[in-house]
Amino acid sequence: MDYRRIKDQNKEHDAVHDDIETSRGKPLSGSANSMVMLGGNSSVQSKWKRKSAVTLALTVLTSSQAILIVWSKRAGKYEYSVTTANFLVEALKCALSLAALTRIWRNEGVTEDNRLSTSWDEVNVYPIPAALYLIKNLLQYYIFAYVDAPGYQILKNLNIISTGILYRIILKKQLSEIQWAAFILLCAGCTTAQLNSNSDRVLQTPFQGWVMAIVMALLSGFAGVYTEAIIKKRPSRNINVQNFWLYVFGMAFNAIAILVQDFDAVMNKGFFHGYSLVTVLMILNHALSGIAVSMVMKYADNIVKVYSTSVAMLLTAVLSVFLFGFHLSLAFFLGSTVVSVAVYLHSIGKLQR
Amino acid sequence: MDYRRIKDQNKEHDAVHDDIETSRGKPLSGSANSMVMLGGNSSVQSKWKRKSAVTLALTVLTSSQAILIVWSKRAGKYEYSVTTANFLVEALKCALSLAALTRIWRNEGVTEDNRLSTSWDEVNVYPIPAALYLIKNLLQYYIFAYVDAPGYQILKNLNIISTGILYRIILKKQLSEIQWAAFILLCAGCTTAQLNSNSDRVLQTPFQGWVMAIVMALLSGFAGVYTEAIIKKRPSRNINVQNFWLYVFGMAFNAIAILVQDFDAVMNKGFFHGYSLVTVLMILNHALSGIAVSMVMKYADNIVKVYSTSVAMLLTAVLSVFLFGFHLSLAFFLGSTVVSVAVYLHSIGKLQR
Repeated sequence: MDYRRIKDQNKEHDAVHDDIETSRGKPLSGSANSMVMLGGNSSVQSKWKRKSAVTLALTVLTSSQAILIVWSKRAGKYEYSVTTANFLVEALKCALSLAALTRIWRNEGVTEDNRLSTSWDEVNVYPIPAALYLIKNLLQYYIFAYVDAPGYQILKNLNIISTGILYRIILKKQLSEIQWAAFILLCAGCTTAQLNSNSDRVLQTPFQGWVMAIVMALLSGFAGVYTEAIIKKRPSRNINVQNFWLYVFGMAFNAIAILVQDFDAVMNKGFFHGYSLVTVLMILNHALSGIAVSMVMKYADNIVKVYSTSVAMLLTAVLSVFLFGFHLSLAFFLGSTVVSVAVYLHSIGKLQR
Repeated sequence: MDYRRIKDQNKEHDAVHDDIETSRGKPLSGSANSMVMLGGNSSVQSKWKRKSAVTLALTVLTSSQAILIVWSKRAGKYEYSVTTANFLVEALKCALSLAALTRIWRNEGVTEDNRLSTSWDEVNVYPIPAALYLIKNLLQYYIFAYVDAPGYQILKNLNIISTGILYRIILKKQLSEIQWAAFILLCAGCTTAQLNSNSDRVLQTPFQGWVMAIVMALLSGFAGVYTEAIIKKRPSRNINVQNFWLYVFGMAFNAIAILVQDFDAVMNKGFFHGYSLVTVLMILNHALSGIAVSMVMKYADNIVKVYSTSVAMLLTAVLSVFLFGFHLSLAFFLGSTVVSVAVYLHSIGKLQR
C-alpha cells in the first residue's frame, strides 16, 4: 500500500538525522547531513523555536476558532451552507500558499524544492487525506441517529487514542511508556473537562453508534497521520508546495460535498447565502489554523498537534468565562489538572526514552 | 519537637538499610545488618510478599467497609451512638493485638522487642495520633455548617495531597517527579470518580469551609504520617506491642468522645442501644482494617496506604453494581482510568528515582 512506501522512506530520513529538514532548499545528501551536524546546536535551537512557534500558533488559532463558533451560535443558527464555507477555507489556504510561494520565488528563485510543478509519483497520495475527511464528514450526518450532539463531542475524544495508535503503527515512531500513559490521561482529561449533567447518556449509545464513532476516530486519525507521512516523505520540499497540492484536492472534494449536500440551497439561494461577518472571520480562522496544522505536521508531529488542540480546548473554556460569562465546572478543573499533568509527563517522558 | 526526634532516628535506620526491620526480634546492630545483607534476595522477596499481603488486606477490608456502610444505611439510619462503636473498635484492636502477642510469647518467649512493658521515652508519643483523630472527628461536626455531605466526600480527597506533602516534609522521604505527578492524578482521579450532578455546589463552599477542609486534611495527613514515624522509629519492636499502645490511647480518647458527645444517650438508652448485626460486622471490619493500616505503616508507608484505600474506593463502586444494582457514571470510568494510570506511574516512577 502507498502509506507503507511513504512511511519507509520517511523512516530512512529519520534514521539519517532528525534535523535533516532544516537544510531547506538542499537535496538530501551526505554533505547536507554533515553540514547540519556541524551546525549542531544552533540548528537544534532554531528547529525548537520553529516547532514552538507553529505549535503556539495552532493553539491560539484553535482556541479563537471555538470562540468564534460560540459567537456565531449566539448570533443565531448556521444560516449558510457549511459545505460552501469549507470550500472557501480550502480555496483561501490554496491562495495563501501561493502567495507565500511567490515571495519565496522572488527571494530565492525557483529551485527543485520550491517549484510548483510536480510528478505523478509525488502527487498521487495527496488526494487521500482530503478523501478521508470527506468520508468522515459525510458519516457525521449519520452518527446523529445514534448519539446527540454533546454525546458526539465526548466520543470525539476517541480521536486522541486513534491518533496515538495509528501514529505508532503507520509512522513506526516510538512513544515511551510514560508518554503512552500521558496520552491516555490526555484523552481522559479532555473528556472529564467536557462532562456535564447529561454526559452519562453517552453510555447508552447503541452498538452501531460505538462502531461509527470508532470508525470516524480511525478515519480522522488516519487522515492526520497520513498527512504527516506525505509531508515528511520529502523533508526538503517546500511546505507551501506540499500545502498547495493538499488544498487543491481539498477544494475538489469539498466541491463534491457541495453537490451532494447543498446543491439545492446553493442553486436557489446563492453560494454566499447567509454569510455574515462572523462567517467570514470563521473562514479566515479555519484557513489559518489549517495552515498551522500543516506546519505542525512538517516541523513537529501529530502528537504535538493533539496536545496543542487539547490545550486550546481548555483555553477556550477559560476565555469563555470572561467573554460570555460561562461558569467552569468542578469537572473542568479536574480535567484541566489531568491534561496539565499529561503535558508535563509527555515532556519529561521524552528525556527518558 | 517530638516528631523531629522520631524522624531523625528513623532516617538513620533507613540510611543503614531499608530492610532492617526484617531482622525481627534482633536488636539493631552491625551484625544483624550484615545478616540481612547476606540474606539478600530472599529477604527482599519476603519483605515484598509481606508488603503486598498487608496492602491487599487493607484494600479488601476498606472496600468491604464501604459496602457495610451502604448496607447499614439501607437498613435504616444510624441508631446507635457512633462514639461507642468507635470505642469498641479500639478495644477490639487492643484485644486482637494482645491475642497475637500471647501466641508470639508462647512460641518465641518474651524478648526485649516483644515485651509489653515500655519506657516513658517510648510511649509518650503514642497518644498524639489518637488526639489528632479526636480533634478531626470533632471538627467534622462543624464543617457541615458550610458543606453538605456529598461535598464533604469530595473535599476529603484533599487528604491525598496533604498526606503526600507531610510525608515529604516530616518523614523526609523522596518521591520522584513522576510519583508526584501520579499523586496529583490520584487525587484528581478519585474526585472525578465521585462526581455527580450536584458536585459543582462544592465550588460555592465559603472561605471558612475551605479553611476547615484544609485543616482537617492536614490533621488527618499529620496523624497518618506521625503514626508511621512512631511505628518505624523502632523497626525491630514487635508491631503488636506498638499497636497495643496506640490502641490503648485510642480507647482513652474515644472514651472522652463518648462523654462529650453521647453521654445522655448512653445513660438513658444504654451503651449498646441500637446495635444490630450490621453494626457488629462494621465494628469487626473497622478493627481489622485498623490493624491492616498499622501493618501497612510498618511494612510499607503512607503513600501505599493512600493508593490502597483509593483503589478500594473504586472496587467498592464496582461491587455495588452487583450487590445493590448501582449504575456507574461516565465520570466514574474516567476517574478510574486516571487512578489506574496513577498507580502504574507510581510503580514505574520508583525505578527511575
